[in-house]
Amino acid sequence: MPYPEEAEGFQVDGPNTFTQFHKRFYKLKPFGDYDVDIKIEACGVCGSDVHTISGGWGSQKFPLCVGHEIIGRAIRVGPKVTLIKEGQRVGVGAQSYSCGECKQCLNDNETYCPVQMMDTYGSEWPETGIISQGGYSSHVRTHEHWVFPIPDALSSNTVAPMLCAGLTAYSPLVRNGAGPGKKVGIVGLGGIGHFGIMFAKALGAETWAISRSRAKEADALKLGADGYIATAEEGWEEPHKFSFDLIINCANSSEGFDLARYLSMMDVHGRWVSVGLPEEEGQIIKAQNLISNGVLIGASHLGSRREMLQMLQLAADKGLRGWVEEIPIGEEGLKEAMLRMKKGDVHYRFTLTGYEKVFG
Amino acid sequence: MPYPEEAEGFQVDGPNTFTQFHKRFYKLKPFGDYDVDIKIEACGVCGSDVHTISGGWGSQKFPLCVGHEIIGRAIRVGPKVTLIKEGQRVGVGAQSYSCGECKQCLNDNETYCPVQMMDTYGSEWPETGIISQGGYSSHVRTHEHWVFPIPDALSSNTVAPMLCAGLTAYSPLVRNGAGPGKKVGIVGLGGIGHFGIMFAKALGAETWAISRSRAKEADALKLGADGYIATAEEGWEEPHKFSFDLIINCANSSEGFDLARYLSMMDVHGRWVSVGLPEEEGQIIKAQNLISNGVLIGASHLGSRREMLQMLQLAADKGLRGWVEEIPIGEEGLKEAMLRMKKGDVHYRFTLTGYEKVFG
Repeated sequence: MPYPEEAEGFQVDGPNTFTQFHKRFYKLKPFGDYDVDIKIEACGVCGSDVHTISGGWGSQKFPLCVGHEIIGRAIRVGPKVTLIKEGQRVGVGAQSYSCGECKQCLNDNETYCPVQMMDTYGSEWPETGIISQGGYSSHVRTHEHWVFPIPDALSSNTVAPMLCAGLTAYSPLVRNGAGPGKKVGIVGLGGIGHFGIMFAKALGAETWAISRSRAKEADALKLGADGYIATAEEGWEEPHKFSFDLIINCANSSEGFDLARYLSMMDVHGRWVSVGLPEEEGQIIKAQNLISNGVLIGASHLGSRREMLQMLQLAADKGLRGWVEEIPIGEEGLKEAMLRMKKGDVHYRFTLTGYEKVFG
Repeated sequence: MPYPEEAEGFQVDGPNTFTQFHKRFYKLKPFGDYDVDIKIEACGVCGSDVHTISGGWGSQKFPLCVGHEIIGRAIRVGPKVTLIKEGQRVGVGAQSYSCGECKQCLNDNETYCPVQMMDTYGSEWPETGIISQGGYSSHVRTHEHWVFPIPDALSSNTVAPMLCAGLTAYSPLVRNGAGPGKKVGIVGLGGIGHFGIMFAKALGAETWAISRSRAKEADALKLGADGYIATAEEGWEEPHKFSFDLIINCANSSEGFDLARYLSMMDVHGRWVSVGLPEEEGQIIKAQNLISNGVLIGASHLGSRREMLQMLQLAADKGLRGWVEEIPIGEEGLKEAMLRMKKGDVHYRFTLTGYEKVFG
């Protein structure tokens, strides 16, 4: 099999034309001793993709091919690779490199590495001038640490969104003690949130879905929620005062969000951890809002390799799968995905499929 | 010895005249089975006293006698009291009652009791219509749970401020793991902060004082700080990026506070815990400010009885004492204390003395 030096992918040229994708060839980074080449089979469509190419998170390097919930086949491994075997089915998530040597990297905090952070798309590979391109494409080339074997029990199309959305929910759950005897809330039933419910329940916590209306209640219960809170209803927080050990805030917007009411549901020293990155200007927080129950507010960014492997195993063991709508990759499919993502019209994740047909 | 049914204390009539104290008699609450009457010997002057009577924390019940860093002698104990003996030297802090039965009260979180919270001054005693009055006075009457035996090794005048300021610093330190191998910062070298440095060091943590200028550096080192950061100096945060496990923010104002620079010094999942309650309108926090190191932001309110007793024992064992300036209680002394507190002109706490002379 010939090794690719180029990949072919669907790029966007700027935020004003973020629904127009152009199929193009571009150079991969030089192949390194620890690199793995992956022929892509499926890719989830993450909220980050839309924030990035529509300009919501500020300026980016265009043209850009996004996509960081990648499933594919390892078709070539570097001479020093030990974590991945050629031919293995593997995944790649939102990050593709870190220094590997700092205190954070050595302590399962590589997604917080302050020395060298490479996103799977839009970052410059060290000393190359080459901007990383994501998984709306035929191939990616990535350091083995950021490539994850996929258990056989998981189907490519339903596991794909776990690579970013799933891990983003899973890591703060396990880092903040979600498990038996704990009451955990998941705010926002979207791509990340639906995994939040699934994993909180799988980890043994009493799991509550928190959403605006009751529209998603049936889904939440099916995903494993023990209870459901609709914040459009009067007095929604009252029965839950001082009761939650942990709430993972997966909401994609902070507009109209009355944080103090949510925080009033936290037990003493409970934790409110945000995983979404709304485009708006944050929230005013006074010490007074935090002091009545000594709550801690935080944010979480992806999760470690170790957590990724644990999460995939948990999903395999418990038969968990992302709830996905499949969309064939291509100009049309991608445009539809972007427009519907912008409206929040997806239950609960798109997975791009049909790679073989488009890229051969 | 006759038991008092009234106390005599120095009251303020409203925020516009908060430096004018009037010596008056007022009724104590009815004596209960678990109550302790305390003849006061000394009382610290807390920032809360000034915030309260000057109106900075909103409307209050006037006339009011403040003071909640009380040291005195137990002159009478109720028939069911088991924690305190008559004649014992004791202290009272900022809180004087909670329900005693809820989940929080049963778990050393009585200062977060959501059922019944009584401040030592300005709260209404249940079913009495009587507003609690503080320690700028001859006597207080309080439930035994909120009365703490003072170890002999500690002098009344220097231990007084530990009853509020000391505990406020001590509790978040022990609750957030301050100890050997941890790097702890104390922001704001005032009444609470000077105890923060003292206790963080006594608990075994690498302790850093963080202040605006270098004016307090010598004091900080004398208090036990291992290092000093002056935030008026360029690049002050640079050498400390990703290094603090815990920072206790004791600053009394949030004006001009660039929180993101402070947070950049936190290690991954480090904790930033505020104990001050600035009068200003809080700070805007974006998830983006928290995500680069997954830091947790919280607030802490006083500390439990158990922590109070541990703190007093630690102080006795290690010979720790508050750095106080003594001021004789009286109209003049109180006026001076209030004016100097407003200016932050105190190193690092006032203790009111001369009770015997004024109250007999």
